[in-house]
Amino acid sequence: MYLSAEDIAAMEGVKKIHFLNPSAVRMDKSLGDVVGLESLGVHLITVEPGYRSTEFHFHHYEEECTYVLSGHGTAVIGDERHPIGAGDFIGSPINDVAHELINDGDEPLVCLIIAQRLDQDVTDYPRLGKRLYRNDGEWNLVDHSSIEHIKR
Amino acid sequence: MYLSAEDIAAMEGVKKIHFLNPSAVRMDKSLGDVVGLESLGVHLITVEPGYRSTEFHFHHYEEECTYVLSGHGTAVIGDERHPIGAGDFIGSPINDVAHELINDGDEPLVCLIIAQRLDQDVTDYPRLGKRLYRNDGEWNLVDHSSIEHIKR
Amino acid sequence: MYLSAEDIAAMEGVKKIHFLNPSAVRMDKSLGDVVGLESLGVHLITVEPGYRSTEFHFHHYEEECTYVLSGHGTAVIGDERHPIGAGDFIGSPINDVAHELINDGDEPLVCLIIAQRLDQDVTDYPRLGKRLYRNDGEWNLVDHSSIEHIKR
Amino acid sequence: MYLSAEDIAAMEGVKKIHFLNPSAVRMDKSLGDVVGLESLGVHLITVEPGYRSTEFHFHHYEEECTYVLSGHGTAVIGDERHPIGAGDFIGSPINDVAHELINDGDEPLVCLIIAQRLDQDVTDYPRLGKRLYRNDGEWNLVDHSSIEHIKR
Repeated sequence: MYLSAEDIAAMEGVKKIHFLNPSAVRMDKSLGDVVGLESLGVHLITVEPGYRSTEFHFHHYEEECTYVLSGHGTAVIGDERHPIGAGDFIGSPINDVAHELINDGDEPLVCLIIAQRLDQDVTDYPRLGKRLYRNDGEWNLVDHSSIEHIKR
Repeated sequence: MYLSAEDIAAMEGVKKIHFLNPSAVRMDKSLGDVVGLESLGVHLITVEPGYRSTEFHFHHYEEECTYVLSGHGTAVIGDERHPIGAGDFIGSPINDVAHELINDGDEPLVCLIIAQRLDQDVTDYPRLGKRLYRNDGEWNLVDHSSIEHIKR
Repeated sequence: MYLSAEDIAAMEGVKKIHFLNPSAVRMDKSLGDVVGLESLGVHLITVEPGYRSTEFHFHHYEEECTYVLSGHGTAVIGDERHPIGAGDFIGSPINDVAHELINDGDEPLVCLIIAQRLDQDVTDYPRLGKRLYRNDGEWNLVDHSSIEHIKR
Repeated sequence: MYLSAEDIAAMEGVKKIHFLNPSAVRMDKSLGDVVGLESLGVHLITVEPGYRSTEFHFHHYEEECTYVLSGHGTAVIGDERHPIGAGDFIGSPINDVAHELINDGDEPLVCLIIAQRLDQDVTDYPRLGKRLYRNDGEWNLVDHSSIEHIKR
């Protein structure tokens, strides 16, 4: 299915606030859903100045990446900080350092975010000390300190 | 992992000719591989004028999509033909009509191609009357006319 | 869910003839289906004297095994032949030699057959020179000689 | 691969004590491992009088079933209790009531236990109020009361 740049510009977008971080706010146009993709999430997101894309996190199973289309900001990748702009690419392999994008510029930061959509995932939020277990629509959030690690 | 636009421009790219179509030629920069993604294929491809992106096909399992970055061409999606340019998006759901991109313009057509990387897939090439069974690295190509469809 | 030995004895069973071998005939009681299993196939099968359990085959993806409950016969495993009786166990790992059970005794051969139920599998029938591609309910049978092996 | 009843009798077995219940003790002969199965767990287990097979539990993803070979006991399936003996079959579908087998007889209870081996599973232990998240070898045990259920 084909979406022209005009079709995409005319899409209304959905305002998404991260459930763990009220300063992680993005306007989301889910291109993938519109064209009928189910296993690939493809989102054109816009982050306004002063906001960030997501709560700092990494996935245990779902791969994710970002291609910057316009605007400026900072990609935080573990301990590194990179200024970002159009044409930059950030890959987020699984079980790697956590990441987030911050719009510390003065114009909207527009990116293409692509991610796997798996039925099961585990996500860590290291700043919050929380882990999210996601299993087929059931979301279980647990403090790291509540987890007993069983050795086998 | 972070790749700047300059890093990407400096990548050499690999010339890929489709194994079933010598006019399907693209320079391929596998951004996903560089940043350590394994289950998402993310490719910055350049198709020169007069060439096409791939042999006309559809997948039974692997979802795929294209975001056009620059240049012009035509997206063939089943019976439809759409002129394409920067900012357009083409989604290729599974078990849908076949698709290909043709650079019938006079400058390079540059796109981001994103696809699942599954261990098992089936691909149909309707113009050639061929089906490719891909199972963990074993590629079996068969003529449609050689397939006996077993009813259960 | 619980099925007593009496419940199982009272089940009617379904006569199954292999689609590629008329001498592969078994009475099948699908215990797994009765108790609500979907990903494990568990079958109590009875093979009468003079018949075999299946066409000689091996799977590329689905693991399978057999536990003999009563009767006698021969397990053919690749080039080996083993006399079988109550309490014997035959495992059929994937991509291994082909196998079949033959009731060459004079009483019914009763076995528990357990197998994975995967959405996608490939099965080879070496005596017939055929390969079955099974993808979500679509069964494609192809002669080995019709397969072009694509090298990458 | 073929294991005769004599081969199986000669196997030594491994004493397994459930990590959450010291009265859940079984001698385990992993027939599946011996014959090279990886995705199917097939275990010949012996539970002595006074012991049980496992901590009362159910799985969210892994299907499981039991075929009784000899001895007597009680199958606890949710609120039901069934006396069990040779030839009985117990299926444990996912997301169903919890189950356990108790040897309240006076001879060893011998069963064939078959289960999927998935990379990811969630197991609930309702009597203990605990949930086990199992993701590729990492076992995380959490009290039900520590889980925040996120609504979407």
